[in-house]
Amino acid sequence: MPIKYTVVEMSEDELEQERVAFGGLAQSVRELAEASLRTTVPAEVATEVREEIERLTARLREQQIPGAFGVGLTSSGVVRGHGNAVVGMRNPIAVPLDMQRSEEGRAWASFHLNALYEGPPDTVHGGVVALVLDQILGEAAAAGGSPGMTGTLTLRYERNTPLGDVSAEGWIDRVEGVKTIVKGEMRDADGQTTVRAEGVFILPRWAREALERDHRKPPRFE
Amino acid sequence: MPIKYTVVEMSEDELEQERVAFGGLAQSVRELAEASLRTTVPAEVATEVREEIERLTARLREQQIPGAFGVGLTSSGVVRGHGNAVVGMRNPIAVPLDMQRSEEGRAWASFHLNALYEGPPDTVHGGVVALVLDQILGEAAAAGGSPGMTGTLTLRYERNTPLGDVSAEGWIDRVEGVKTIVKGEMRDADGQTTVRAEGVFILPRWAREALERDHRKPPRFE
Repeated sequence: MPIKYTVVEMSEDELEQERVAFGGLAQSVRELAEASLRTTVPAEVATEVREEIERLTARLREQQIPGAFGVGLTSSGVVRGHGNAVVGMRNPIAVPLDMQRSEEGRAWASFHLNALYEGPPDTVHGGVVALVLDQILGEAAAAGGSPGMTGTLTLRYERNTPLGDVSAEGWIDRVEGVKTIVKGEMRDADGQTTVRAEGVFILPRWAREALERDHRKPPRFE
Repeated sequence: MPIKYTVVEMSEDELEQERVAFGGLAQSVRELAEASLRTTVPAEVATEVREEIERLTARLREQQIPGAFGVGLTSSGVVRGHGNAVVGMRNPIAVPLDMQRSEEGRAWASFHLNALYEGPPDTVHGGVVALVLDQILGEAAAAGGSPGMTGTLTLRYERNTPLGDVSAEGWIDRVEGVKTIVKGEMRDADGQTTVRAEGVFILPRWAREALERDHRKPPRFE
């Protein structure tokens, strides 16, 4: 079933205001989330804080979009994925990644994974590694002009990834028709590879047809 | 490198208090996170709410554990993974999953994925599917008495998973020495399979040796 992108018309000033006010709001929720996981305040204090949080939630809900955030496509073809679960600046569960990209089909990011991303003790959850690498491999495919949806993703966990500073990278290995094969890896603070990944990304037929109909290039992710 | 589990001594009453006060706190942060993503209040209101959130964060940080939450192992061998990124009741980014398990090596859960878990518009992020399935496959291995760390994980995305009510399941396919091969799948609200997964879980040598030394059974996840 085709996925619907919304065309958004936002000026540079409006985008900047969104970044400051609502990106800042999301960042404050990220910090609250980490604090609420690690706190050892008395149960009464936790309950008081919870009640204040519920009041703030009600205030934010006074005006809201009806459903999920969606992905906007500006008239110049730039994707505004501010709700994305991995990179969305407005999404509090997103790390978020400050993704770097190059046109030959490479994407990479250095970031910090705190207590919120734990699986085994002091260790990044194996599924979080998969979550991040899926996004990075997909962005590498898009950066190289061969965007697609994840078809398959294979991860090989070679060693534990300690929580803390980490980095990840993806690069197009080859393109075979509508399939883009992307490789990538996760690295720990010392730059040692901990997990290797390979993904096959496929641009669905409806998306190819839409692009051809509009004589458009694939969308860019920025 | 061995992973350190902490032995925790908590009574049933203390565990229940943790569930109510701190599980409740985490749940309120989950709802705030979703509201902050979807809100369309004026930028000034967003900034005011942010300031109040920062005040609450400071209050929670007055007393906190020094690092990540870790995984506790009670004296009866039950794992207390309340900080876990997927199932942790105290972790606001966790869905969380109410995992069901059976001793023949099966784990499953029905849950709701809201706007926070979005990738493509109205669609569960492919990496979120991987995140959840990694956890469920690992729990299936543990439930069947063959726990392990993720060695490899392979995902085949057959169709999009719409945001909303979903379910996932994992089951031990076979055990080959120290390797437990687990299969699983994600299903949409209609029960249709959207993503298939296969994982190989391996109990590290240090863990096998520790279990043999202590004449213990593998830990149970509850």
